[in-house]
Amino acid sequence: MAESADVQQSRHPTDVLLEKAAALGCRPEDQAFAVAMDTEDPLRGLREDFHIPKMKDLPPTDPTLVCADDDCVYMCGNSLGLQPKGVRKYLEQDLDYWARYGVFGHFEGPRPWALCDEYVTEQSARIVGARPEEVACMNGLTVNLHLLLVSFYRPTSTRHKILIEGKAFPSDHYAMESQIRFHGYDPATSLLLAEPRPGEQTLRTEDLVSLIKREGDAIAAIVFSGVQYYTGQLFDMETITRAGHSKGCVVGFDLAHAVGNAELHLHDWGVDFACWCTYKYMNSGAGGLAGAFVHEKHAAADMPKLLGWWGHKMSTRFRMDNKLDLSPGVNGLRVSNPPPLLVSPLLASLDVFQKTTMADLRRKSVLLTGYLEFLIKKFYPKPAGTAIRPWVEIITPSDPAQRGCQLSLMFSVPIGAVFTELERRGVACDKREPNVLRIAPAPLYNSFSDVHRFVSLLGQSLQAAQL
Amino acid sequence: MAESADVQQSRHPTDVLLEKAAALGCRPEDQAFAVAMDTEDPLRGLREDFHIPKMKDLPPTDPTLVCADDDCVYMCGNSLGLQPKGVRKYLEQDLDYWARYGVFGHFEGPRPWALCDEYVTEQSARIVGARPEEVACMNGLTVNLHLLLVSFYRPTSTRHKILIEGKAFPSDHYAMESQIRFHGYDPATSLLLAEPRPGEQTLRTEDLVSLIKREGDAIAAIVFSGVQYYTGQLFDMETITRAGHSKGCVVGFDLAHAVGNAELHLHDWGVDFACWCTYKYMNSGAGGLAGAFVHEKHAAADMPKLLGWWGHKMSTRFRMDNKLDLSPGVNGLRVSNPPPLLVSPLLASLDVFQKTTMADLRRKSVLLTGYLEFLIKKFYPKPAGTAIRPWVEIITPSDPAQRGCQLSLMFSVPIGAVFTELERRGVACDKREPNVLRIAPAPLYNSFSDVHRFVSLLGQSLQAAQL
Ligand SMILES: Cc1ncc(COP(=O)(O)O)c(C=O)c1O
Ligand SMILES: Cc1ncc(COP(=O)(O)O)c(C=O)c1O
Repeated sequence: MAESADVQQSRHPTDVLLEKAAALGCRPEDQAFAVAMDTEDPLRGLREDFHIPKMKDLPPTDPTLVCADDDCVYMCGNSLGLQPKGVRKYLEQDLDYWARYGVFGHFEGPRPWALCDEYVTEQSARIVGARPEEVACMNGLTVNLHLLLVSFYRPTSTRHKILIEGKAFPSDHYAMESQIRFHGYDPATSLLLAEPRPGEQTLRTEDLVSLIKREGDAIAAIVFSGVQYYTGQLFDMETITRAGHSKGCVVGFDLAHAVGNAELHLHDWGVDFACWCTYKYMNSGAGGLAGAFVHEKHAAADMPKLLGWWGHKMSTRFRMDNKLDLSPGVNGLRVSNPPPLLVSPLLASLDVFQKTTMADLRRKSVLLTGYLEFLIKKFYPKPAGTAIRPWVEIITPSDPAQRGCQLSLMFSVPIGAVFTELERRGVACDKREPNVLRIAPAPLYNSFSDVHRFVSLLGQSLQAAQL
Repeated sequence: MAESADVQQSRHPTDVLLEKAAALGCRPEDQAFAVAMDTEDPLRGLREDFHIPKMKDLPPTDPTLVCADDDCVYMCGNSLGLQPKGVRKYLEQDLDYWARYGVFGHFEGPRPWALCDEYVTEQSARIVGARPEEVACMNGLTVNLHLLLVSFYRPTSTRHKILIEGKAFPSDHYAMESQIRFHGYDPATSLLLAEPRPGEQTLRTEDLVSLIKREGDAIAAIVFSGVQYYTGQLFDMETITRAGHSKGCVVGFDLAHAVGNAELHLHDWGVDFACWCTYKYMNSGAGGLAGAFVHEKHAAADMPKLLGWWGHKMSTRFRMDNKLDLSPGVNGLRVSNPPPLLVSPLLASLDVFQKTTMADLRRKSVLLTGYLEFLIKKFYPKPAGTAIRPWVEIITPSDPAQRGCQLSLMFSVPIGAVFTELERRGVACDKREPNVLRIAPAPLYNSFSDVHRFVSLLGQSLQAAQL
C-alpha cells in the first residue's frame, strides 16, 4: 500500500511516542505529555473549524460528574462526524438564493443547483485517490452500492459468487443477498463469507489471498470494506484487488469507514468500483451525500446500468428529445438531479480537508490512535495470573498499516455498564452489538488531550461499572 | 376520478368566472376583477408563508421595464416550488442539534435523524391519497422509480413490454429503456409508446384504454405520468389502472407534476406503485427528498427487491446480526439512512399544506388556471381569416378534469423571443424544447392578480418579440 512515510517505516507509534516523551522529559501517560503533543501538532488548529459539543449538552451526561462547559470527549467520528462551522454559511446561501431567485437558482448563483454536485467531486476524488471524472457524489451509500452492482455484478452459472467479509455491515450484507436473489441465485450458495481463523478477530491478508486463489473462478465480485466497521481493521485493498483481478473477479470497496480516515489510491490500485458515505469522517451530517467511484478503465465499457436523465451529458441534457447521450463512466450512473442542501455541508467539510493532506492527517492519526493504544495497554492490560481487576482487549490490529483511527475494545466486565458510565461522563463513543465499543479519535478535530481524557474516564467507568 | 365538487360538476370554470364578474359588476379581464377574486379567495393568506422573489432579484429582469420591488410573476412552481418561510427554522434546528449533540441527534432532539423521514410520510400519504404505511420518503424520483421497477417490472418472454407516453419525461424514458435492457430485452420491441392521434397534442383516455386492451397481454408494466410535464395533461389514472389490471398488467405512476397539484387517490384507485419528486408543487427545494408508494395489497408480496439496512424493521435493525427482518411494503424498500437536511424543507412545506386540503386547493386551482385560459383565449386567439397578429395556442386540455394548474402554450411567433421578453419583464416560467412555454399558477401562493399580470406582460412580450 502506498502509505505515508511514518506508517511505511514500520516503526510502531509506541516507539515514536516513547522517544518523544523522553525528549520532553516526561512520561507518555502524563497529561503534560498530551498537552505537549497537542502543542506541536501542526493540525491542531483544524479543531477550531468544528462545533465540539459541550459536556452539558450531551443528553446522557450526568451533571454531577463533569465540568458542564468543557468540550465533551467526542470519539464518535466513525459514526457521525462533527459539524464544520462553515456549513451554516453555505446553507444560508442556498436558502437565500432559493428565496430570491426561485427557479433561476438552477443555473445562477454561487453554486447553481443543476451543477452543485460538481463542486464536491474534485476534492472528493483527491481524498479517495481518484481522477475527478472517476467520482460522482450522489444518493446514499447503499443506493450507490446497488447502482454499481447492477453494472459490475454479472453472475453466470459458473461464476456467480460474491465474496464479502463474514461480518460485513448489515446494509452491505443485505444488498449482496438481494442482488444475488435478483439474478436468480441463492445467497446460501452464492454469498461467500471470509471468516477469521478460529480464535482470531480479524482477517489475514494471506488467508484472503489464498481464499481468492482457491475460489476465485467461481467469484464474480469481491466487495470488501476498506476499514471494517466492527473490528476497525484496514484491509490491504491493493493486494485484494490484485488477487481478485488475477482470478478474473471484479473488485469493489465500501469505503464508509475508510474515506477521510485512511490514505486511498483507488485509481492506482486499479479498484473497479467503490462507494462511500460522507457522514462519518467526512463530516457532512446525517444522511449526507454519498460518493461513487468507477475506474477510468471502465469509462467506455458497455455494462448494464440503471439510468436517469442526470447521466445524460449536460451539454445536450435539456434538449429533452429522449435520445440518450450518456456521460462516460461514473457520471453516466448519476440518476436524479442533485440536492444542494446536501452538497453544502460536504463542501464545508472539504474546505477543512483542503487545509491539509490525507498524508498529514494520517501521520497525525497514526500517533493519535497509537497513543490511545499505548494508554489502554498500559492501564488496562489483561492481568497476569489470578489478579482480578477489569481489563480491556483491543481487537483492532496493532499494526498501524492495518487500521485507521478506530480501536474496537472488548471488556472483562459487562459492556453495557461501561458504556453507560462513559456516557454519564461526557464521552461520545458507540457500542456495536454484540460486544465492542468503538473509539475513534478523528485527526481532524481530536487532540492528544482528548485521548488522555478518554482513557482517564474509561478508568473511572470501569471502576463504576464494577460496583 | 374522485374529484372535488366543482370539477366534477362539469361546469367549466369560464362560466363560473363570467357569473362572478357579472355579480361583481365588472368584466373578467378587468384588474379589479382579479383583485376581487383574490379578496374572496379563502386561501389567499397562504402566499404569506412563502418567499416570493422580487422583480429586481430575478437575474434576467430588465430594470427599465419593471417596478424593482414588486413581487415577480412566478409561474414556475411546476419546475421549482417557492421556499416556504418555515424552512429556515427547521434547518437551524437540525444544525443546532448537530452542533450540540453530535451523534446523539440520531435518537434525540425534535426530529431524531434516524427517524426523520417518518415526520413527513403521514402528510405525504394524505396528499397522494394513500395510507401512511404505503408511502416512504427517500432518494430522488428516478432512483425510486428504479427501486420500484426492480420489484414490479418482471418481464417474461411473452409479457415484457412497458407502456409509457410517447413524450415521457426523459429521465423516465431512460429509466425504462435501461430496465428493459437490464432484463435482456430490447427497447425497440419492448418499450411501447402511446402517441396522440395525428394532429392532436394530448392522449385520449379511450385510445389508451383500447391500446391496453389490444396490447395488454404483452405488457408487463404501464408507467404513466399523473400530469404530463410537457402538455400539462392530467391522466385518468383510475381508468388507466383499471384497464391495465383487467389485462394483468402492473400499473405505476410518476407523479412529479401531479403531487400537490391534482387530487390523488392512489389507494382507492388500486394503483400498484408510484413515485414523485417534491421540488415542484411540494416546494421542498432543488433535489428534494422524493416519495414512493406501494399499494397495501403488495405489502407481503414476495417480489425482487434491492435492499439495504433501512428496510430492516426498526425494532431489530441495530442488532446488526445480518439476519434480515424486513419491513412490509414500501418501508422494506428504504435502502439508506435518511437525510434530515432534506426532510426539513419538505416538512416546512407540508406545514403549509396542513392549513388546507387538496380538495380546497384544487377548487382554487381550477378557477385560477381557468382564469389564465380565459384571458389568453380572450386576448390572443388565433385570428380568423388573414389578420396577422400574434396568437397563442393552449395545448393543455380545456377540460379541468384533464389538467392540473399548468397550461402549455405554443406561439405564432418564435418562442425564444417571447420567453426572453417575458423574462425581461420579471416573469418566471419555463420553456421546454421543442416548442412550449409552461405556465403554472400554483394555488398555494399564486393569486388571480398574478395571472392578470402575467397575461398583460405576455401581451407586451408578444409585441416586443415581433419587433
Ligand atoms: C415527470 C418527471 N419525472 C422525473 C423528473 C426528474 O427526476 P429526478 O427528480 O429523479 O431528477 C422530473 C423532473 O422535472 C419530471 O418532471
Ligand atoms: C460499512 C457501512 N456500509 C454502509 C453503511 C450505511 O449505509 P447508508 O449510508 O446507505 O445508510 C454504513 C453506515 O454506518 C457502514 O458503516
